[in-house]
Amino acid sequence: MQFHHHGYVSGDPRVQPAAGTGVNRPDDLPGVVDVLIVGSGPAGMLLAAQMSQFPSLTTRVIERRDGRLPLGQADGIQPRSVETFQAFGFAERIMAEAYNIGWMNFWGPDPADPSRIVRTARTEDYGYKISEYPHLIVNQARVLDYFAEAAALGPARIAPDYGVEFVGLTVHDADAGHPVEVRVRHVAGPRTGQEGSIRARYVVGCDGARSRVREAIGRTHVGSAAQHAWGVMDVLVDTDFPDWRIKCAISAEAGAILHIPREGGYLSRMYIDLGEVAADDNHRVRETPIQEIIRRANAILHPYSIDVKQVAWHSVYEVGHRVTDGFDDVAPGDDRDPRVFLTGDACHTHSAKAGQGMNVSMQDGFNLGWKLGHVLTGLAPASLLRTYDAERKPVAQQLIDFDREWSSLMARKPAEISDPQDLATYYLGTAEFPSGFMTQYEPSQVVGDATHQALAEGFPVGKRFTSSEVVKVADGNPVHLGHHARADGRWRIYAFADRPATGEQSALAEWAEWLNAPDGPVRRHTPTGADLDAVFDVKVIYQQPFEEVVLAAVPEVFRPRSGPLGLIDPEKVFAAAPSAWTRTDIFDERGLSRDGVVVVVRPDQYVAAVLPLSATAELDAFLTGAFLPQREPVAAGAAPR
Amino acid sequence: MQFHHHGYVSGDPRVQPAAGTGVNRPDDLPGVVDVLIVGSGPAGMLLAAQMSQFPSLTTRVIERRDGRLPLGQADGIQPRSVETFQAFGFAERIMAEAYNIGWMNFWGPDPADPSRIVRTARTEDYGYKISEYPHLIVNQARVLDYFAEAAALGPARIAPDYGVEFVGLTVHDADAGHPVEVRVRHVAGPRTGQEGSIRARYVVGCDGARSRVREAIGRTHVGSAAQHAWGVMDVLVDTDFPDWRIKCAISAEAGAILHIPREGGYLSRMYIDLGEVAADDNHRVRETPIQEIIRRANAILHPYSIDVKQVAWHSVYEVGHRVTDGFDDVAPGDDRDPRVFLTGDACHTHSAKAGQGMNVSMQDGFNLGWKLGHVLTGLAPASLLRTYDAERKPVAQQLIDFDREWSSLMARKPAEISDPQDLATYYLGTAEFPSGFMTQYEPSQVVGDATHQALAEGFPVGKRFTSSEVVKVADGNPVHLGHHARADGRWRIYAFADRPATGEQSALAEWAEWLNAPDGPVRRHTPTGADLDAVFDVKVIYQQPFEEVVLAAVPEVFRPRSGPLGLIDPEKVFAAAPSAWTRTDIFDERGLSRDGVVVVVRPDQYVAAVLPLSATAELDAFLTGAFLPQREPVAAGAAPR
Repeated sequence: MQFHHHGYVSGDPRVQPAAGTGVNRPDDLPGVVDVLIVGSGPAGMLLAAQMSQFPSLTTRVIERRDGRLPLGQADGIQPRSVETFQAFGFAERIMAEAYNIGWMNFWGPDPADPSRIVRTARTEDYGYKISEYPHLIVNQARVLDYFAEAAALGPARIAPDYGVEFVGLTVHDADAGHPVEVRVRHVAGPRTGQEGSIRARYVVGCDGARSRVREAIGRTHVGSAAQHAWGVMDVLVDTDFPDWRIKCAISAEAGAILHIPREGGYLSRMYIDLGEVAADDNHRVRETPIQEIIRRANAILHPYSIDVKQVAWHSVYEVGHRVTDGFDDVAPGDDRDPRVFLTGDACHTHSAKAGQGMNVSMQDGFNLGWKLGHVLTGLAPASLLRTYDAERKPVAQQLIDFDREWSSLMARKPAEISDPQDLATYYLGTAEFPSGFMTQYEPSQVVGDATHQALAEGFPVGKRFTSSEVVKVADGNPVHLGHHARADGRWRIYAFADRPATGEQSALAEWAEWLNAPDGPVRRHTPTGADLDAVFDVKVIYQQPFEEVVLAAVPEVFRPRSGPLGLIDPEKVFAAAPSAWTRTDIFDERGLSRDGVVVVVRPDQYVAAVLPLSATAELDAFLTGAFLPQREPVAAGAAPR
Repeated sequence: MQFHHHGYVSGDPRVQPAAGTGVNRPDDLPGVVDVLIVGSGPAGMLLAAQMSQFPSLTTRVIERRDGRLPLGQADGIQPRSVETFQAFGFAERIMAEAYNIGWMNFWGPDPADPSRIVRTARTEDYGYKISEYPHLIVNQARVLDYFAEAAALGPARIAPDYGVEFVGLTVHDADAGHPVEVRVRHVAGPRTGQEGSIRARYVVGCDGARSRVREAIGRTHVGSAAQHAWGVMDVLVDTDFPDWRIKCAISAEAGAILHIPREGGYLSRMYIDLGEVAADDNHRVRETPIQEIIRRANAILHPYSIDVKQVAWHSVYEVGHRVTDGFDDVAPGDDRDPRVFLTGDACHTHSAKAGQGMNVSMQDGFNLGWKLGHVLTGLAPASLLRTYDAERKPVAQQLIDFDREWSSLMARKPAEISDPQDLATYYLGTAEFPSGFMTQYEPSQVVGDATHQALAEGFPVGKRFTSSEVVKVADGNPVHLGHHARADGRWRIYAFADRPATGEQSALAEWAEWLNAPDGPVRRHTPTGADLDAVFDVKVIYQQPFEEVVLAAVPEVFRPRSGPLGLIDPEKVFAAAPSAWTRTDIFDERGLSRDGVVVVVRPDQYVAAVLPLSATAELDAFLTGAFLPQREPVAAGAAPR
């Protein structure tokens, strides 16, 4: 955490100074905004937290509920989401209160007496196998609390406008400044019943499975009409079931349960499979009483049982597998930039079995947030927004496919299961997907091609940047390189140095000089008057032990001055060689070329480009495609800013 | 973190439900209190956080300042303090914002040109060598913020009463209910100028080096009259000094600097030695201007230099080495229980060089808090309070001795230093002391003797309980056994099992049955109507892998029911054998007998007793000495509560 350099920070350094629209932010909804977020679920609140880093913009979040969500349904947190929480500053806190999934156990009928269940497999869960972060269970309401805090403490000081309902929208003229007219209605508070309209540059529908924004832009859910019903309950019990505090899948003759221990040490959640819903059911399944759900659970658990002492929450719901036909308001064949977007359940719905929904929704928001910020602040062309649908729709489809496969595997009748280890094998074999690490974006204006992938095998272009430990040269402390990438809307350029030491002639030094030149890409795309690292956070990783890296000889682009005092930021220079406090070398761990390599990473932590240090023209071309120029070209030899 | 078992917790689980005096706690200072804390520094605020766990008591904190401390002087945090922060629930947050001391470097004159300094040694700092927790630097103001939060979120909802000055006190009659009359004056806020008096059962002076409470009870500082002067500054600079972000000791011909990087990545603190103060100096040294301090720093740093861009804080101060002649109000030879106590700087002052002051002060508060809580709630006899002075005064003396030795080593002129590695060797060789782990309390009513120490070599009686990783049986997750011991005022009894498995006949099972008997010590010392684990948190650690421990066969005393629903707490049963997620075995790591051993730990985390499982009479006798009986003896065979 870096602070004090804009003046001494006496209080919590997580509270960023208010700026721009965050200074005297009006309580009332303004009539004109830059971004209107509809809904305060996981996608909407992540988006709010992200937009809070763009205080020159006006962002508002409307939510029909009259306040904070007291009890959410989603609770599975994949390692990718914990990475994301880290970027927003609250990973360590949510980890301290969440349930950590250490194991995934499987139960099936006892061959000797198939009316009784026995444990068929213990599987170490994938969290720590695949990431420095765990696989967690924590209530969605707490996730929203933390994003709300990040939104409120960011420079734009964003807080949801509760009790305001989305009624409809009209996109008037895509070329005008605030083309989207949104009609809203106050449904709580002193203004209840009042209607009004808001003009927005962009609108994001984060309003759930029955999204009105989706309806307003004429998008429709596509997918299987088949509905599967689940009874779900969060309960406190007396039980002799040995795995009450371990995640497990139970497949008995009497039915199937997905069992998820919850945070706090006592509560657990059970998803009880109620089977396919008949076409003429007409939601009658929803009337299944809680007593019936408990009865079924006990039948499945036999010879074990639960004596339910308290039901914290329960529900019966039906769900299909559906993806919306487009994630924005641009009709097929229409060649214009989008103005309205859909995220999360508003554009993909599926079962809860794989614990994916909230996670994918958050990544929708993370994908869209910086793009809105960059387009609206003039850093990037509006065409950047087309990549949202292009990147996220395939992810949603993959999610549906995975969920369908996993659900059907879990829904098998015991008789269909030849090898009880099947599920365990599938669970671990596919772990990269539910961890959130399989997403790979296709080449676009913000994702380069894989021409030079061999220089950095461990950083696949289009996938999220995998962190590794390095040593911070300034203080000799081990740090996770990826954890320095906070969700501040900036791009990262990591220069992994070639072999020569600091001060010696090297490809790195030449590259750094080019990058930092008066007419180089950093200055070209950084607004006049902004800090040199305001758009690109450029870091270097030397191959030497940290003791051998001479800070004073490190090229200036890695030691930019910033803030009111023009202090040098000393935390952009790293060393890869193992030290007293680290065991690994990131060059080895990520398969990086010892001749050096440049890895460009987007604000949402996805690898955008892998290039040799010599490929300055390619890097220049890539950045030219992704960004708009911010300054007049500078004549060669002229003094930099 | 355990919650939800007293009802579903929708918000931050760190917010405990208000209880007792925390419900409708009056804003105004009451005229009668149980505990009055004078001063809101590290000792006072830890004490407030601890007393917040005793909501049947009225505890108030008066502070003459009109609000939160904006900028504190102390900043060194030893690993023992981080352990303590963990017990109070904020270790992970403060670690995220603090500076981590990875290294301690030493600089001295270049033999080739003694006017120039060169690095003479790099030393890995001791934090992670000696503890699972780091050695940190973070401003005292933030430490106080976190304790204030813990005090405010605890059941008693304690917040300091700012703007109230301690004027004096009288101890009227040590046998009366509220014998201490304290005179106070409002010095800020609407009541400024008003005086009043408060009757208290106990008063704790946490009011710093110029303590008025100390004066009021007639205690005096004893020690060397010699005063040493220091210039200290927190500065933001431009510099070519390579170790600006590394802790170092610089001993140059031009003088000495202790250099401490501060949290936030930019700011560092320099202590510049201004030498012994002449007897007739009359505080003239305090007038040393900041320019002179900077000039001296630059002279010492030559050939490097600092260009100071901003001085966040600076001071010149003189300090001696002094310990107060008693830490309570009981005169030597007087045989009564104390009513007034001194903590922190009020009873020990010394240099800042070893970074110890705030840490030792906090342990003063941790030592005293539970004792006050237990005596006032009737769990323990008032004689327990005599152990505060007996235990903490020797620690203060050790601190002074260590600080004097360290200071004089660091104050040596370069010519006196034969081996430049001297300091580095001393620094690491004595690391257990500045880590806070050397404190060892003598036998008393709450510390047993070392008769059976050989059964648990790694848990020395009288020293703080060193944590190790074990596996939580209920969910198979690795956990630090010590981290389950929160600062909730409870004692811990750890039963390390003998070899037999759960369900088999064993010494453990016999011991557990004895402990849990209707006339056993747990029920004898637990108030009627309280949860069975309200006073003693009894845990078991089996030698087997967690998969082999059958929870249903674990004796009941390790699976007590608690809370309104009478749910079984599943988090008291652990397994020692290495598992998929742990590498160590606590029996090996701590040298524990495979025949089993009982380790009794106090609420402040100090080991009180080590006993074999067979020594029930000895354990009974120890507990009888430490606690008061809470119930009438139960006839053998009668039904328990």
